[in-house]
Amino acid sequence: MKKILQDFKAGKINLEEVLEKLRTFPYEDLKFAKIDTHRALRKGFPETIFCQGKTIPQILKVIEAMSKRNQNILATKANKKIFTAVKKVYKNAEYNELAKTIVIEKKKLTSKKGNILVITAGTSDIPVAEEAIVTAELMGNKVEKAYDVGVAGIHRLFDIKDKIFDSNVIIVVAGMEGALASIVGGLTAKPVIAVPTSVGYGASFKGIAPLLTMMNTCSEGVVVVNIDNGFGAGYFASLINR
Amino acid sequence: MKKILQDFKAGKINLEEVLEKLRTFPYEDLKFAKIDTHRALRKGFPETIFCQGKTIPQILKVIEAMSKRNQNILATKANKKIFTAVKKVYKNAEYNELAKTIVIEKKKLTSKKGNILVITAGTSDIPVAEEAIVTAELMGNKVEKAYDVGVAGIHRLFDIKDKIFDSNVIIVVAGMEGALASIVGGLTAKPVIAVPTSVGYGASFKGIAPLLTMMNTCSEGVVVVNIDNGFGAGYFASLINR
Amino acid sequence: MKKILQDFKAGKINLEEVLEKLRTFPYEDLKFAKIDTHRALRKGFPETIFCQGKTIPQILKVIEAMSKRNQNILATKANKKIFTAVKKVYKNAEYNELAKTIVIEKKKLTSKKGNILVITAGTSDIPVAEEAIVTAELMGNKVEKAYDVGVAGIHRLFDIKDKIFDSNVIIVVAGMEGALASIVGGLTAKPVIAVPTSVGYGASFKGIAPLLTMMNTCSEGVVVVNIDNGFGAGYFASLINR
Amino acid sequence: MKKILQDFKAGKINLEEVLEKLRTFPYEDLKFAKIDTHRALRKGFPETIFCQGKTIPQILKVIEAMSKRNQNILATKANKKIFTAVKKVYKNAEYNELAKTIVIEKKKLTSKKGNILVITAGTSDIPVAEEAIVTAELMGNKVEKAYDVGVAGIHRLFDIKDKIFDSNVIIVVAGMEGALASIVGGLTAKPVIAVPTSVGYGASFKGIAPLLTMMNTCSEGVVVVNIDNGFGAGYFASLINR
Amino acid sequence: MKKILQDFKAGKINLEEVLEKLRTFPYEDLKFAKIDTHRALRKGFPETIFCQGKTIPQILKVIEAMSKRNQNILATKANKKIFTAVKKVYKNAEYNELAKTIVIEKKKLTSKKGNILVITAGTSDIPVAEEAIVTAELMGNKVEKAYDVGVAGIHRLFDIKDKIFDSNVIIVVAGMEGALASIVGGLTAKPVIAVPTSVGYGASFKGIAPLLTMMNTCSEGVVVVNIDNGFGAGYFASLINR
Amino acid sequence: MKKILQDFKAGKINLEEVLEKLRTFPYEDLKFAKIDTHRALRKGFPETIFCQGKTIPQILKVIEAMSKRNQNILATKANKKIFTAVKKVYKNAEYNELAKTIVIEKKKLTSKKGNILVITAGTSDIPVAEEAIVTAELMGNKVEKAYDVGVAGIHRLFDIKDKIFDSNVIIVVAGMEGALASIVGGLTAKPVIAVPTSVGYGASFKGIAPLLTMMNTCSEGVVVVNIDNGFGAGYFASLINR
Amino acid sequence: MKKILQDFKAGKINLEEVLEKLRTFPYEDLKFAKIDTHRALRKGFPETIFCQGKTIPQILKVIEAMSKRNQNILATKANKKIFTAVKKVYKNAEYNELAKTIVIEKKKLTSKKGNILVITAGTSDIPVAEEAIVTAELMGNKVEKAYDVGVAGIHRLFDIKDKIFDSNVIIVVAGMEGALASIVGGLTAKPVIAVPTSVGYGASFKGIAPLLTMMNTCSEGVVVVNIDNGFGAGYFASLINR
Amino acid sequence: MKKILQDFKAGKINLEEVLEKLRTFPYEDLKFAKIDTHRALRKGFPETIFCQGKTIPQILKVIEAMSKRNQNILATKANKKIFTAVKKVYKNAEYNELAKTIVIEKKKLTSKKGNILVITAGTSDIPVAEEAIVTAELMGNKVEKAYDVGVAGIHRLFDIKDKIFDSNVIIVVAGMEGALASIVGGLTAKPVIAVPTSVGYGASFKGIAPLLTMMNTCSEGVVVVNIDNGFGAGYFASLINR
Repeated sequence: MKKILQDFKAGKINLEEVLEKLRTFPYEDLKFAKIDTHRALRKGFPETIFCQGKTIPQILKVIEAMSKRNQNILATKANKKIFTAVKKVYKNAEYNELAKTIVIEKKKLTSKKGNILVITAGTSDIPVAEEAIVTAELMGNKVEKAYDVGVAGIHRLFDIKDKIFDSNVIIVVAGMEGALASIVGGLTAKPVIAVPTSVGYGASFKGIAPLLTMMNTCSEGVVVVNIDNGFGAGYFASLINR
Repeated sequence: MKKILQDFKAGKINLEEVLEKLRTFPYEDLKFAKIDTHRALRKGFPETIFCQGKTIPQILKVIEAMSKRNQNILATKANKKIFTAVKKVYKNAEYNELAKTIVIEKKKLTSKKGNILVITAGTSDIPVAEEAIVTAELMGNKVEKAYDVGVAGIHRLFDIKDKIFDSNVIIVVAGMEGALASIVGGLTAKPVIAVPTSVGYGASFKGIAPLLTMMNTCSEGVVVVNIDNGFGAGYFASLINR
Repeated sequence: MKKILQDFKAGKINLEEVLEKLRTFPYEDLKFAKIDTHRALRKGFPETIFCQGKTIPQILKVIEAMSKRNQNILATKANKKIFTAVKKVYKNAEYNELAKTIVIEKKKLTSKKGNILVITAGTSDIPVAEEAIVTAELMGNKVEKAYDVGVAGIHRLFDIKDKIFDSNVIIVVAGMEGALASIVGGLTAKPVIAVPTSVGYGASFKGIAPLLTMMNTCSEGVVVVNIDNGFGAGYFASLINR
Repeated sequence: MKKILQDFKAGKINLEEVLEKLRTFPYEDLKFAKIDTHRALRKGFPETIFCQGKTIPQILKVIEAMSKRNQNILATKANKKIFTAVKKVYKNAEYNELAKTIVIEKKKLTSKKGNILVITAGTSDIPVAEEAIVTAELMGNKVEKAYDVGVAGIHRLFDIKDKIFDSNVIIVVAGMEGALASIVGGLTAKPVIAVPTSVGYGASFKGIAPLLTMMNTCSEGVVVVNIDNGFGAGYFASLINR
Repeated sequence: MKKILQDFKAGKINLEEVLEKLRTFPYEDLKFAKIDTHRALRKGFPETIFCQGKTIPQILKVIEAMSKRNQNILATKANKKIFTAVKKVYKNAEYNELAKTIVIEKKKLTSKKGNILVITAGTSDIPVAEEAIVTAELMGNKVEKAYDVGVAGIHRLFDIKDKIFDSNVIIVVAGMEGALASIVGGLTAKPVIAVPTSVGYGASFKGIAPLLTMMNTCSEGVVVVNIDNGFGAGYFASLINR
Repeated sequence: MKKILQDFKAGKINLEEVLEKLRTFPYEDLKFAKIDTHRALRKGFPETIFCQGKTIPQILKVIEAMSKRNQNILATKANKKIFTAVKKVYKNAEYNELAKTIVIEKKKLTSKKGNILVITAGTSDIPVAEEAIVTAELMGNKVEKAYDVGVAGIHRLFDIKDKIFDSNVIIVVAGMEGALASIVGGLTAKPVIAVPTSVGYGASFKGIAPLLTMMNTCSEGVVVVNIDNGFGAGYFASLINR
Repeated sequence: MKKILQDFKAGKINLEEVLEKLRTFPYEDLKFAKIDTHRALRKGFPETIFCQGKTIPQILKVIEAMSKRNQNILATKANKKIFTAVKKVYKNAEYNELAKTIVIEKKKLTSKKGNILVITAGTSDIPVAEEAIVTAELMGNKVEKAYDVGVAGIHRLFDIKDKIFDSNVIIVVAGMEGALASIVGGLTAKPVIAVPTSVGYGASFKGIAPLLTMMNTCSEGVVVVNIDNGFGAGYFASLINR
Repeated sequence: MKKILQDFKAGKINLEEVLEKLRTFPYEDLKFAKIDTHRALRKGFPETIFCQGKTIPQILKVIEAMSKRNQNILATKANKKIFTAVKKVYKNAEYNELAKTIVIEKKKLTSKKGNILVITAGTSDIPVAEEAIVTAELMGNKVEKAYDVGVAGIHRLFDIKDKIFDSNVIIVVAGMEGALASIVGGLTAKPVIAVPTSVGYGASFKGIAPLLTMMNTCSEGVVVVNIDNGFGAGYFASLINR
């Protein structure tokens, strides 16, 4: 754009030509604006790629493009086959089998910010929780975790009260009836991000039950992300933990 | 039937005629059997009539038929107009405006059995809870209640722990996310009957949210009845409190 | 806690320190209280583990922890692979292939309580029924069963009327249209626990049809648990059969 | 068409013109064909008009058109206001307030065919049953009815076994859980037409529950029509009672 | 029962004993009654077994029991593995691979009744149609078929108008949008049994779309059975074709 | 923008200032671009306002803003109360009571383009059809209509074959089972826009049934808009009729 | 038909006989009419076959029948196995693995019409887009594409504004939340055909989420086809691009 | 508790008695703990009461209890009748008719924190937005708003880019298709709280459509609250704006 304006001042192009060119520019400008905005806040933010539904060649190509920007890279919903293919090219790629995430670190994260606490209701909810943790850690957060503290034995929740009091944001990952988010939301005034999971059977309808539970929570300070969306919760927690 | 057999023995009717008559009897027999069974257990059990969808003349006619059996009568989902009509005929009819129940007492219940505890998550769940209470009391139970102890402030639940420990059966009435049933079920080993209510808005979908929550409870010892079915919960609680 | 108080009395710690310590204690207290409560009623109650969604190492670890408490152990929704792994460590583990349950008996149940009757509408509902039976038996109940007595041939139901009259609690397991629970509920005044199953096709929607049927039953004295939740029905039946 | 062909033979129009004209004729032909077919079977069949969503002037206009064909006329889902308007013009119009039907008789039905039996599960299902009865009677059938024989007290069903054995077709009208259709279907080998009704509350979801129940019936010989579609059931029963 | 009565008349047992015995008899009586009813109308009706969800040993055992009654046997939803096992024992068992039905003929059907017409909208609906045909033929009906006459090319439907006019009952099998049932119902005054199929993708939701279409048909004389329930349609058609 | 550039060339502002200013400009540019685009194609296109959920003052204010641009104005889903308020200010406002539309004409449409045909399945679908017609006419189209040609009497459809052959685009408006769109789509190769309506009862679920039917049409050349969205259909038809 | 008329004129058959013959003719006539209609507009239109749910022999037979008409042939939802079988017989068959389409070209398309633009929100939506493209190209259109321009980075959409301005019709293919269709519809006055895809997880419910989004778009000029129905979108776009 | 311990030290009560008393204390302790926690963060936080489903006397009683704590009070979903009753007792109560909120200010909020931006897609979404604003302001936040910037005219969104860049948290309120949240989420890296509204008709299903859209957003950094839950969004925004 600079060049256009200089050409214009230098008389190489006339007013109409500049206007014409600018008519097509806004988009690039917008793009820049966006990148500007992002650059400011992307200190340590990873580039992310959602693998599900993409072919391995597509994934490799995306990662290649991302690699140029010298940011850490996070691939989610990546099965082992994808990881094997990625690993061949990116030797330092690391796989979290539970979370199904691949991380390619371009620059070490040195200092970590405050505490995000990730709680699961059951053992089966752990993979989704791990996805949240990998995401939040790669975005520069210290993450604490407490697994299997479901409402059926609510004393287990009280055992982790110190963790709850010491955290800035809490992610609650729960399938089946998903009641845990409401309980945690009722115990603390910290922001709670609820992640329904597809864990359960019968009338859990692959996550609809906990999703509705969390949506209808009577506890203040609880918001919800998509079923099994650990990444989204980890990302949002990072945004508000800055 | 006795008469038939005596007639048969007396030779007034022959074998074929008895067989013919008996072929048509089973049903009546079955009916008697059923009534027998019921009589045994209906000590103090009320006759019940579900008013919704019935015209006032129909309701009056049903009550009239019931009146002959000298049992207490319980009408549910009865609006004020219905009550006014019933009151004209049955002077001792009593109306619980919250529960929308009419009770016509034919014989006083003297002794009351053990404790049924009815808990609601919120204030708006009270009408459904009251229907459960009216039902259970008319079936000869002592009923305790604790309203508005929802999970958003779980300490309120702990305040009633003595009531929980002292009860034989617990009815949990909750709308919105319905998580209370799971919490109570996790705190006690008493049977818990969960009643989802249509209280809430948006994604509560008139009770689907708490219904699914309760269905998917990870707490052992919780069963569910229909949305807003306070009567059903009170009835079932009475069955297991005998 | 005793020690704290004795130290306090002995002047080793001052009032503020005790208060501080107590502020963190309630939870442990609650935990104890709960365990106390449970111990009282857990005579013969098994420790239970829901296997679905857990890895085999996780399952083994949970069983190991459970083993210390000298209670019988029940694992549900366990496939054969899980059983093989468990069997290697716990030689007396027993597998019910239909019910997909593993039982590890630590102490023999000697006397059995009253009668729980488990009825299925069809042959395909048997696995869910078996899960209920294994659960109820391990909780110290005598269990009777009657399979394939669906409403299409209602005379089959009448053939088992003696079983119905002799039982204290009835579990009705039915898929497809799930009407059996209403019929049984109409025939008897015993508490009926209805278990919808995912048996069926088309508009049964993996159990939604019988679930709704059972929820809307016009028979008094029927409650519902989750689709295919034989364990939940067996557990609740045991609670009310004590 | 005759005329065209005669003109053609008479040479007034040529082959191409006939072909052209015929290209546009098939539809009229089809219409005639259809009417022919119908005339054969419409002996006593009423003309019908579904009033819901139509304005009163529209309804009057339709009836006027129908009146020319000298068939009996049946208007369904007609509220009182509609009836009042119709009555002004058609003095012999008769209203069934429960069924919300208007009948205008053009020719008396003399002989009635065999028996159609209409059963309802509850009292609140009667309006839908009445719509079926009005329809079937106007189509020349003898109709028996038995109301309030729901499954909660199955002996009531056995009381009407003679009616069941004496009928050719059975219409079962049921809301709430809709189980009655399965029971009746299991008791008899007569064709059963099941009509789910929107009677109920909570998880009956305005008729979805009985609809699914009836769809998934394990009894052979049961078919289903739309929720509250008494007319459809009465019409179909008439078709197969001929 | 005869014997009881004779013993009673002979004074071998007294009145009370007879009454006691009779109290337990109704059920057997009912059973007999039912079988009587059935025997009358089961001329040529096959015994049927729904294979889905049953183990092969269970299926063999059911067939063995059925074999004693000397009726033709029909097994539905039977995969090839089941057939192989059945074939080993019953040499004359025949398999329809499309319909997934096994037929074991005990007595040849000699004369066939009138015409049932089975129409499918598409090629993919044929398996469900074949199930209906196998069923109806085994119940003694002549069956005509017309496949792939879907509404997208409605002239195909008109090509089979003679078949439509010559039939007594019409079964319409359609997936996707299921509109064919309405068209056929509008063309003819014969009873139409609509079978939605799970053929389709996306918003057909495994048969919900055609199911709703058929339920809401504005054509008179159309009833509906469960998704993919060819057997049910064939059976019902046979009932009304007698 | 021109001024900025001229100022820049004149040296009144420097390069950095221009860039800064431009960074904030893209949006306005985009806005202009959009308006440009629209102006080109808005010859005769009305300004539209969706009234539902807006207060009367809000509606008046929007219309006032629109009035400045000298375009015809179309308000949809407008009840009579709204019209009365609008009429007071805009004397030439015209109301279509069926369509619930208000039209304020600023410039007469002189010539009309080709033919759009609007067909309804039933009489009750007319209001939605009228909304489509008002919209399409105001956008400069000649519109033909044919009402009540539903599939139950398919000959009525054939009666309008000439209209079908003479149109460029066809809008099919249908509630209940919505099959008409498929039939029309199968009869013609013209683009068909299907509008499901909320007309019907029971399992039509306020338009879900016809929506799914139309979505799953096996006829090529059919697209769908929202339930009762006559405006959307009229608008889209106009876009493709240019 | 000509012959009949000539015979009639020649006196070989009389008026009644002609009428009788014509009564059975309409359908053939209609068929011809339809073919006529189609022939006119099928210049370059392919014959199409939807492979899902059809056996390979069925597919081959359909293609064989199609081959006689000398039109290009398009098979959709065809897996590789099907292609292999087709390729054996039709050597020039070509397979698009992403789109899962087979094309057999009988006559080369020479000139291509205007521009259809196909946009996808994500990489995973490409297969559905490809199906649309194959369809539209085979129907004689020039197709432009722009993939992965989802709303999360809206600047990507602005980068393709020239393509948008240069197209006549736009197909938007989007899964997950499907918002892209609304954005594009808001940016342009070209007709937009929205295709929801089953891409996504959790609460996308296999395409319900984007389907509802697109249905409810507040942008004018957007219509919707079935989930994953790339063919339908390509076909409709071709209809309006003529 | 202090007193108990002092009594214990003073020997007035023995160790067992203290332990007994403490066993019942945890709950109160917990309550205190909770209140402590809250007090710390409740600086300026209002007491809130959800009015829907509560009677006016209940509401007055709750407000009375709240009044003792000297916090500002916020009542939501309060209709005018409720306000009139409250106003009589609390003279300084103020009503926001759009938001349906009552505010009773006990202490003036002096300084306001950073910026929360509330955006609506349409005019009809304003009431929900106002509820969010009232809530956030009462919790001590400065709130900016921008109404009617829906995606159909995306340039309106760009007009408010400065507001977007200057805010810390953004609340997006949108009904119909709800796409706005994704667009905003894609434009900024600020946390976005999405509120689906029940605005719309047809397939918006009272808010399900925008709820699903927002759940499935492909933009990072977007979370969702219940349909029409402006309060929840305002509350959560306040939590993360501290």
